[in-house]
Amino acid sequence: MTITITAFERSPDGGKGLARDTRVRWALEEVGQPYQVRLVSFRAMKEPAHLALHPFGQIPTYEEGDLALFETGAIVFHIAERHAGLLPGDASARARAITWMFAALSTVEPPILELVTARLIESDRSWSAQRMPLVEDRVRVRLGQLSRRLGDADWLDGAFSAGDLMMASVLLRLRASGILDEFANLAAYVAHGEARPAYKRAFDAQLAVNTGKPPTG
Amino acid sequence: MTITITAFERSPDGGKGLARDTRVRWALEEVGQPYQVRLVSFRAMKEPAHLALHPFGQIPTYEEGDLALFETGAIVFHIAERHAGLLPGDASARARAITWMFAALSTVEPPILELVTARLIESDRSWSAQRMPLVEDRVRVRLGQLSRRLGDADWLDGAFSAGDLMMASVLLRLRASGILDEFANLAAYVAHGEARPAYKRAFDAQLAVNTGKPPTG
Repeated sequence: MTITITAFERSPDGGKGLARDTRVRWALEEVGQPYQVRLVSFRAMKEPAHLALHPFGQIPTYEEGDLALFETGAIVFHIAERHAGLLPGDASARARAITWMFAALSTVEPPILELVTARLIESDRSWSAQRMPLVEDRVRVRLGQLSRRLGDADWLDGAFSAGDLMMASVLLRLRASGILDEFANLAAYVAHGEARPAYKRAFDAQLAVNTGKPPTG
Repeated sequence: MTITITAFERSPDGGKGLARDTRVRWALEEVGQPYQVRLVSFRAMKEPAHLALHPFGQIPTYEEGDLALFETGAIVFHIAERHAGLLPGDASARARAITWMFAALSTVEPPILELVTARLIESDRSWSAQRMPLVEDRVRVRLGQLSRRLGDADWLDGAFSAGDLMMASVLLRLRASGILDEFANLAAYVAHGEARPAYKRAFDAQLAVNTGKPPTG
């Protein structure tokens, strides 16, 4: 059955790969599943047809036959559960990989989202300059904890998993702030993720949408 | 095998059930699994023994034989996957229930956490009064979308699931703000969750820890 995902007609980041469809594209590339993309404009995202698919009016969504899903974490998990390559076979290792997926989305990403909001939406407010160091320090606390856990390992728990896919994707949002580079092992971890052929294909595909040029190679 | 979870020795909310161990207790009560609780002080949470279990120095954790997990979403999912009662048998319905778990934690809870942070940590800052309406409105946007999707249904997608357990738990954190009551169907949805016998047992058990009195009944 054909898999169809949605993505921004024009990503707010201009193709830096930070929109959440990149995470789903990456997962599909890791497991070798072809997919189609339906592009959605900002206006269409808030209209009834898209809201029926995604109650929060966002991308990505995932359709496969009668199944319609939203929420990046759930879509990546669905892909990981049905195809080999993103979750270990051992039951305990599998539960720990799922733990890292939730940790990326529920514990590491929220302070990063706060930072993104502070920079994008509150930058012209009177409190912005004073408040920013607080918000940045909350991100540093989380990254420090993650950095200590990762140590000099390649991935968070043994082989690359959906947990690493999600954590690297979440951390990528921080690169422009410079905070990621304060933690050398985390910066290397993210670079290690970006070096995967599946990530490169996913990145190139989203870039092609945003530049109007077909992916090379 | 014995299940052992961790909880605050003294919950910051004094026993209102908002600490995340309540979510795990609720899941265990729904599926009828007995469990033990190890209480952890704020100081011990940041020490090596606990950090080995939970890299972010939080509660709850979950131990069962050789398996050690952290992250509430992952623990609730692990429980739901292994015992009947929290996920539907039909594959598509199951994927949608998991979607609501991720939606609760990744889409609905982050703006609620921002509100909690603004109230608890930034309330004495010069910008607090001016900024609060912005933060509250971000919560209202999400709740409005969720309210429209829920409509007059009892639960988010058919029968009660781990997705409802997580969403109701996330929304409970808003009750004190008054914002939950602005959305009558969401307030009723949360009350519906609280009325479940399994929730009551979970709530009473965490309350007993915080009042030093054994649960009644």
